Amino acid sequence: MISKSQISFIKSLHQKKFRKEHGLFIVEGLKSFSEFVGSEYEIDSVFYTGDLSPKLSKLSQNVKIYRVSNDELAKISILNTPQQLLALVKIPRALQVTQKDLKGAFHLVLDGIQDPGNLGTIIRTADWFGLKYIICSNDTVEVYNPKVVQATMGSLPRVKIIYTDLAHFFESAGLPVFGALLNGISIYETDFGHEGLILLGNEGKGISTELIKKIKVSVTIPRFGEAESLNVAVSASIFCSEIRRNS
Amino acid sequence: MISKSQISFIKSLHQKKFRKEHGLFIVEGLKSFSEFVGSEYEIDSVFYTGDLSPKLSKLSQNVKIYRVSNDELAKISILNTPQQLLALVKIPRALQVTQKDLKGAFHLVLDGIQDPGNLGTIIRTADWFGLKYIICSNDTVEVYNPKVVQATMGSLPRVKIIYTDLAHFFESAGLPVFGALLNGISIYETDFGHEGLILLGNEGKGISTELIKKIKVSVTIPRFGEAESLNVAVSASIFCSEIRRNS
Repeated sequence: MISKSQISFIKSLHQKKFRKEHGLFIVEGLKSFSEFVGSEYEIDSVFYTGDLSPKLSKLSQNVKIYRVSNDELAKISILNTPQQLLALVKIPRALQVTQKDLKGAFHLVLDGIQDPGNLGTIIRTADWFGLKYIICSNDTVEVYNPKVVQATMGSLPRVKIIYTDLAHFFESAGLPVFGALLNGISIYETDFGHEGLILLGNEGKGISTELIKKIKVSVTIPRFGEAESLNVAVSASIFCSEIRRNS
Repeated sequence: MISKSQISFIKSLHQKKFRKEHGLFIVEGLKSFSEFVGSEYEIDSVFYTGDLSPKLSKLSQNVKIYRVSNDELAKISILNTPQQLLALVKIPRALQVTQKDLKGAFHLVLDGIQDPGNLGTIIRTADWFGLKYIICSNDTVEVYNPKVVQATMGSLPRVKIIYTDLAHFFESAGLPVFGALLNGISIYETDFGHEGLILLGNEGKGISTELIKKIKVSVTIPRFGEAESLNVAVSASIFCSEIRRNS
């Protein structure tokens, strides 16, 4: 049973403004939620239907737990088919990353990705391929948007997401920048070496002019048909696969 | 200016039942629409705002053209931000495909894909990599769903989509079946040869038991991290890239 004011509070967290104000975001579904349990994220409260009690017993005593009806869950969920459980999780402090953290590995860098589903899918894919960091421009969609969290399918706790000024970041990162562009060398002929940054641009506008200057190697996924472009999450995945295929 | 009854007619086409009844589907946006002009698809009518007249002059005289207000377009659109133009396009007769059509090339086969965005992205990716056919199980999401059409970003006219009974199809296709499974050989070590069918399963349940028996080679995208699975459009893309990298 939850109160009307709780319902409107949780619904307010569908909006970025109120997530920022309250420092909380929404995770839905037992499977996604279970990836947050025991992670670095701190769980604030859990709203669940049915008999999840044994699975919830592992939670710290500070977590507020509410049993709710299906109707109540439907009211606070963003999903068409709400999934047994909705949790509020605390937004951690903004992450910092150093040259040392990044050294000897590959990382994705996203310049202005707007679609929540794309960002979520990229995080999930990065987790599959064992990439630890994704660096996002400040105008990239917010990672705590419920649609992003949903699309990560529980991968969010394992991938560190950093928002920063990318031009400045490239200067201090100390790694070669591979840019996904339409007029570069074939990805199949690119020697990625053993470390680097893979830069992918906005869905419509691509990589911003300012950042194109920072690219060391322009890399293209060759086109064999007639589509004008690839979805950015698809491009990111093909890059992840290519850097891993020789590792 | 359009009538109330036209608005409710177009809105009814958001539902599969009425698309089937009237044999029409919705295409939104000038860019996507322009890919249908001059294709094998027959355009029934166009609703546009602003001054698109020169671009629309190429259309056959049978096409009904209506100039509408932004408010009217918003009423008939499925998009949050309607894009200047909405067209109704005739659903063509169900396609058939023969062994001869398929010979000497690679094709995607989808077993029960449910998410419209996934199917649309797969069609767009297939178009990028020059794949001509996608064969779908009968329970795969309908390709004329407006969200599928939207996600194809104009690629639909260039990729032929066939719905059929897959078990029966595999028997008559005369091509080796490569199945995307979690316990197969590495995709990086798979010899795909010069032709074949790439079978991908449902988002949650994977490939159905009945169809697993038809697989000649089980192929896996190696996992380097901890995500439980990859998004199916992402998997499809990595398969498309791998079959092309040696071609």
